[in-house]
Amino acid sequence: MKIRVVKNVLASSEQAARANRCRMDDAGVVMINVLSAPGSGKTCLLEKTIPALAPDIRCAVLVGDLQTTRDAERLHAAGAPVTQINTGKGCHLSPAEVAAGLDSLDLAGLRCLFVENVGNMVCPAAFDLGEHLRVVLLSTPEGDDKVAKYPTLFQPADVILLTKVDLMDVLDYNPAQVRADLAHINTRAPLIELSARTGAGMDRWLAWLRERLGRR
Amino acid sequence: MKIRVVKNVLASSEQAARANRCRMDDAGVVMINVLSAPGSGKTCLLEKTIPALAPDIRCAVLVGDLQTTRDAERLHAAGAPVTQINTGKGCHLSPAEVAAGLDSLDLAGLRCLFVENVGNMVCPAAFDLGEHLRVVLLSTPEGDDKVAKYPTLFQPADVILLTKVDLMDVLDYNPAQVRADLAHINTRAPLIELSARTGAGMDRWLAWLRERLGRR
Repeated sequence: MKIRVVKNVLASSEQAARANRCRMDDAGVVMINVLSAPGSGKTCLLEKTIPALAPDIRCAVLVGDLQTTRDAERLHAAGAPVTQINTGKGCHLSPAEVAAGLDSLDLAGLRCLFVENVGNMVCPAAFDLGEHLRVVLLSTPEGDDKVAKYPTLFQPADVILLTKVDLMDVLDYNPAQVRADLAHINTRAPLIELSARTGAGMDRWLAWLRERLGRR
Repeated sequence: MKIRVVKNVLASSEQAARANRCRMDDAGVVMINVLSAPGSGKTCLLEKTIPALAPDIRCAVLVGDLQTTRDAERLHAAGAPVTQINTGKGCHLSPAEVAAGLDSLDLAGLRCLFVENVGNMVCPAAFDLGEHLRVVLLSTPEGDDKVAKYPTLFQPADVILLTKVDLMDVLDYNPAQVRADLAHINTRAPLIELSARTGAGMDRWLAWLRERLGRR
């Protein structure tokens, strides 16, 4: 008996990712896969980023969660078209789920599609969704040891955002440890320290984003 | 063609979990599976719990991470025999990995084995490792919306620890939301608020643990 199952699933996943990327290219939309642990501040970051890019850069969001539409409600209030994808027990968004989500969005006039993945430092990292850019968040309360512990998340990142830096003073946090670990894993991606709540560092993130959106 | 692969994997996983539980029962050891998102404070909790239980309750730890032995080093310093299991790209500990880890531990004289799972709110929840008790942590910086978003993690918990409550004042945190969500998902497990750093609430956790260890 040949075990064809897993191979077929992966092949079809790559195919679906390629199809998503073609669809985005045809529409002139840049897809950005946003990954992190649960509660690192993905939704809060997008709540602040979307209005800051408007009106010249129009954004939409596909947001993945096992359950609830809480993130979608917050992002809708931030002024973006949003589709929530509930994965049930699924630990990551698949390119097929993203494709289904795209069917519900009007891509005309959009420049940027954020895909807020399921909060998980392991599984989402293994799946290309068809994105053009991959943004990885690490929040200070998670600790300064996570880069070395979860290299598969940080290695393919195009930018790494160290979030909730407003809490750094009350935490026993050592950002030098993060930089030292990144030196072994990913020297290509800039590390931007920010707090979406206070606004600190948001200018550097928005400048990076505008520059990368301008390149395509 | 019959697809037997997944079924066999799951059956063998359940079998390995049962074998682990029998092995623990024979040795008079209570196995406790500790689950949470990355950086919720599992290692810090155990660093404080192990010395607080000594010398009458002797503990050991199996700790899972994709990479590094950082947690094992910290727990070793806390005075417990520790084995680190590196899962590579694996998103959870499997009962087979736990069985292999057990081979490296001397169970004689032990009363309690903590299994610190890979930091992940999704995948570890789906795997019985052969544990007798399941402890789930949720840290305040992760947000007060996580219970409803990750019900599969919180539903089978025997106790839920709301950690890092010393940060609650600087966060816009609403513990009532956590309680309201738990009322729909798990009314069996107590919710204990604590800070391993300051020691607040540790007495309630230790009392719960001693009581449950005494029952077996």
